[in-house]
Amino acid sequence: MSNQPNHPALLIPGPIEFDDAVLQSMSHYSESHVGAPFVATFGETLSMLRKLFQTTDPSSQPFVISGSGTLGWDLVAANLAEPGDDVLVLHTGYFADSFSDCFETYGVKATQLKAAIGSRPQLPEIEKALKEKKYKLLTVTHVDTSTGVLSELKALSELVHRVSPDTLVIVDGVCSVGCEEIEFDKWQLDGVITASQKAIGCPAGLSISMYSGRAIKAFQSRKTPPGSYFASFKNWMPIMQNYEAKKASYFATPSPQLVHALHTSLTQILSKPLSDRFAAHRAASQKVKKAVTELGLKQLASDPADQANGMTAIYLPENVKAPELLPNLLKKGVIFAGGLHKEIATKYIRVGHMGVSVTDPKRDDIDRAITALQGGLSDAGYQKA
Amino acid sequence: MSNQPNHPALLIPGPIEFDDAVLQSMSHYSESHVGAPFVATFGETLSMLRKLFQTTDPSSQPFVISGSGTLGWDLVAANLAEPGDDVLVLHTGYFADSFSDCFETYGVKATQLKAAIGSRPQLPEIEKALKEKKYKLLTVTHVDTSTGVLSELKALSELVHRVSPDTLVIVDGVCSVGCEEIEFDKWQLDGVITASQKAIGCPAGLSISMYSGRAIKAFQSRKTPPGSYFASFKNWMPIMQNYEAKKASYFATPSPQLVHALHTSLTQILSKPLSDRFAAHRAASQKVKKAVTELGLKQLASDPADQANGMTAIYLPENVKAPELLPNLLKKGVIFAGGLHKEIATKYIRVGHMGVSVTDPKRDDIDRAITALQGGLSDAGYQKA
Repeated sequence: MSNQPNHPALLIPGPIEFDDAVLQSMSHYSESHVGAPFVATFGETLSMLRKLFQTTDPSSQPFVISGSGTLGWDLVAANLAEPGDDVLVLHTGYFADSFSDCFETYGVKATQLKAAIGSRPQLPEIEKALKEKKYKLLTVTHVDTSTGVLSELKALSELVHRVSPDTLVIVDGVCSVGCEEIEFDKWQLDGVITASQKAIGCPAGLSISMYSGRAIKAFQSRKTPPGSYFASFKNWMPIMQNYEAKKASYFATPSPQLVHALHTSLTQILSKPLSDRFAAHRAASQKVKKAVTELGLKQLASDPADQANGMTAIYLPENVKAPELLPNLLKKGVIFAGGLHKEIATKYIRVGHMGVSVTDPKRDDIDRAITALQGGLSDAGYQKA
Repeated sequence: MSNQPNHPALLIPGPIEFDDAVLQSMSHYSESHVGAPFVATFGETLSMLRKLFQTTDPSSQPFVISGSGTLGWDLVAANLAEPGDDVLVLHTGYFADSFSDCFETYGVKATQLKAAIGSRPQLPEIEKALKEKKYKLLTVTHVDTSTGVLSELKALSELVHRVSPDTLVIVDGVCSVGCEEIEFDKWQLDGVITASQKAIGCPAGLSISMYSGRAIKAFQSRKTPPGSYFASFKNWMPIMQNYEAKKASYFATPSPQLVHALHTSLTQILSKPLSDRFAAHRAASQKVKKAVTELGLKQLASDPADQANGMTAIYLPENVKAPELLPNLLKKGVIFAGGLHKEIATKYIRVGHMGVSVTDPKRDDIDRAITALQGGLSDAGYQKA
């Protein structure tokens, strides 16, 4: 079934399990970062990202940079906003707090619109906020990895374009690109930042993002230079455009091995209709969520419309402690994650269901996860009330 | 000899050829970035870096962050200097210009001390500059990859400590760590930034750096917050300290595969005395430089004391053009690099001799490089005058 040695199934909300061929691409022999073979691989990778994000507008601009998902925040904060600008951050968990910190680092004033844990800001209050102040951009965490809350992008973007048409719509898609439907052009998104190690199914180490022509224009009409050097559009944009045109170019050395792995992963993803992929994630998610409900447990996201399809955040029963349950699950061969939302970190656990664990019919990761969770809770003395 | 498929030997000054075991570590199965096995691997990697940099001072602080060598400039400029500070940048090629740009991005005033191409600023003029103005820090490119010029660190650091004792001594060691002697403690260095893909022998994708207790104190006494979010000491320092203490910690997701590869590479490097490693690089370098001289060619670095041991930058004969020579060398099975220094880019080529290509007795990369260069020049009609 797999060339990988026997190991516990990694079912945290990223990094995820990787396909054998993707891991093999990680050990590609060394190539020059400016030689024709690698330039072609990188160029194709950038073009494939356009398909993953469902954008055919030639003014859209993909970026692949060595870094992590976090670097995407710097890309947005240091290029698409200027010191003194106001930005509106929709808060659905831990990651909105960090994104706000990132804006503040670059002198950008972040206003948070918060929802109760497990919920998300509603359109009427967002509309009200957008009418109160002129925001350079709005950010939304598509799936907050700390809570498993899914945000709705289409209606949100429509609202922003209607009420505050100059405001850029920026999506933190670290835990959504590759498992949640995203139609970059159709939904008129201006930026989606993500990383390699979640539903895209490539080892960690790459910041991946897509910007609209409108976002690039906003960048080009800045009055001040970008606030970061390593995360500067000015430094990277010509490089990305050259690679995609199959021309060698240098600003900082990319990672040929990681780009090869991303190329392999994207080739696999795009070999089937994206709609099938999203359906497979919805189906696996429903299976997990049904089992959780049957166990009498509640999710952080109480409204099914707010529940992510790539992960599930589950409140623990009163007497079950994560520091005892998680090691027991590991013994049963699956790795879940603990809580991450500061206020309630000890009270819940998280399970990821993304990538090959849900799309590869030869894998039984999800069934094993459910069986392990049932057994683990039973071992802890839990019985459904 | 190698598990890697037959491929041309990559002999540019980074990325270099990688050992089989290092490449195999790149395809390690997926692990949680906060699980005990990976935390141990990352912790050991950080501790091994102390040995590579020859520092036993517990107040020294290693960093390993997903990114490229370029990110190291942001780490320095956004954390060790503040807006309005003056810094002195010793210029030996392309990379000092970029480092200066990076400082300016963060509002730091960079003064360059330039030398003629192929040379380096001399101690008396550096002393004069240090006496004229108070500099927060001084940067030196240990080996400038664009020119192959080696800077002398020991006497330079002594000078700075004598003349301007509050000035931090910062080394751009991207093209030197792992192939040039660096004694971090003994030479009283305050920061050395580097990357994974050169003489350290691990695929690109990691920014690696070491800072002295004095540098960390300078950071802690900043009046303004760090200028970058992704490159912030404030965000990363607790993470690095926790990993090294074998405690899970999270700011941004590291790349377990790249860290495994770095762990393998450092284990190999440290299995033998570092002095042997540096001697092997000196010997290979002498072999290449002797062949270059015998061909009647000149190096950019004319003074042998200024010549790097991990690479050689070679002026082409009048009638030999790089765009014809380099593809011919590729046909002969070796990849050299073109020129990078803007003013003379078309007039020279560069060859790297680092890592397994010089330390693995089973490899004949250096001999093949020399033979290919001789043949390539002959094919181009060149005859020694």
